[in-house]
Amino acid sequence: MKENKELINLEKIFQFCLEIDKEKMIKRQTYLSDGSVKENDAEHAWHMAIMTILLSGYANEKIDVLKTITMLLIHDIVEIDAGDTYAYDAEAKKTQKERELKAADRIYSILPKEQGDYLRNLWNEFEECKTPEAKFARTLDNIQPTMLNHAANGKSWLEKKVKLSQILDRNKNTAKGSNALWDYSYNHFIKPNVDKGNIIDDM
Amino acid sequence: MKENKELINLEKIFQFCLEIDKEKMIKRQTYLSDGSVKENDAEHAWHMAIMTILLSGYANEKIDVLKTITMLLIHDIVEIDAGDTYAYDAEAKKTQKERELKAADRIYSILPKEQGDYLRNLWNEFEECKTPEAKFARTLDNIQPTMLNHAANGKSWLEKKVKLSQILDRNKNTAKGSNALWDYSYNHFIKPNVDKGNIIDDM
Repeated sequence: MKENKELINLEKIFQFCLEIDKEKMIKRQTYLSDGSVKENDAEHAWHMAIMTILLSGYANEKIDVLKTITMLLIHDIVEIDAGDTYAYDAEAKKTQKERELKAADRIYSILPKEQGDYLRNLWNEFEECKTPEAKFARTLDNIQPTMLNHAANGKSWLEKKVKLSQILDRNKNTAKGSNALWDYSYNHFIKPNVDKGNIIDDM
Repeated sequence: MKENKELINLEKIFQFCLEIDKEKMIKRQTYLSDGSVKENDAEHAWHMAIMTILLSGYANEKIDVLKTITMLLIHDIVEIDAGDTYAYDAEAKKTQKERELKAADRIYSILPKEQGDYLRNLWNEFEECKTPEAKFARTLDNIQPTMLNHAANGKSWLEKKVKLSQILDRNKNTAKGSNALWDYSYNHFIKPNVDKGNIIDDM
């Protein structure tokens, strides 16, 4: 009986692990650092998980590193069904929440209940952005693409004709997770691209 | 003075974070589950990190989940310089260690010393495969591509004309991290592909 339950749970976990392979096919708007191709959600999550390990000491409040990493590793899984919603696409933003909730219902329910609930609650926590872990995860979710955009000579900003006001609005919560990292990102990644004209200075 | 040191450390960390972006350009021999394109090292590491969170309870010995995840997230960084060495390429295997050590010297030394030493030691630990965390990480490093190969109808096995003896040799340590996961992988991923002729039965 116990062995049967263990096997059924393993089957559910492996079914979920196979399902999330599709996250590697979800392209974002950010280019890799060499500007060659657009990044996908799995690459983005991997990058931020390592950044969490290296940068957690710069969080405003003490964070649980494993919890933050887990949150970042899974936070875009809903995009397997809902797709990537570009940060500056106002129309798509209107239906984003509904599309993502439906996706969460389907994908997290593949797992054994306890594990599915744990990951789904972590995703909710990320979305609500209230705990120290969620605030720091959001900080990295904003800074990692900014770092890549800067490395790729502002390619994505130029293509989308992005304005400084849009970037500052998107980053309005970035400092809540880490003042030090927001300062670094603004001074090293954003400001130089405003000065070069890669970001439109509308302020 | 303290602020200066903090800024210098942040610059080193961000330089490293940018450097490892190149891991997304290192292709492996495994196809994604739909058989469309080959997986890259960053996607592979992301996938195994989530699998660790979900499957750590099946380890033979109790493991530190954060340590295991960190090990898996960074274990292929040396391939940025050394390239991916195909598991069944005997010639390339001969020079693999030397190429990877040189890569580790360069890449981990970008970081502030304490953090660089920490990650490099974790990579050494993974390579030596003696601790419970390293053994479990190795288990997943073998099972994750097996799962994908099975999902892609054995595409990579068929292309490379892989024999069962090669797979069993590569997997000779898989059970050391988890008997339950090795049993699952053998019965659900490997055996069905031997039966279908996707893996050459030479035993």
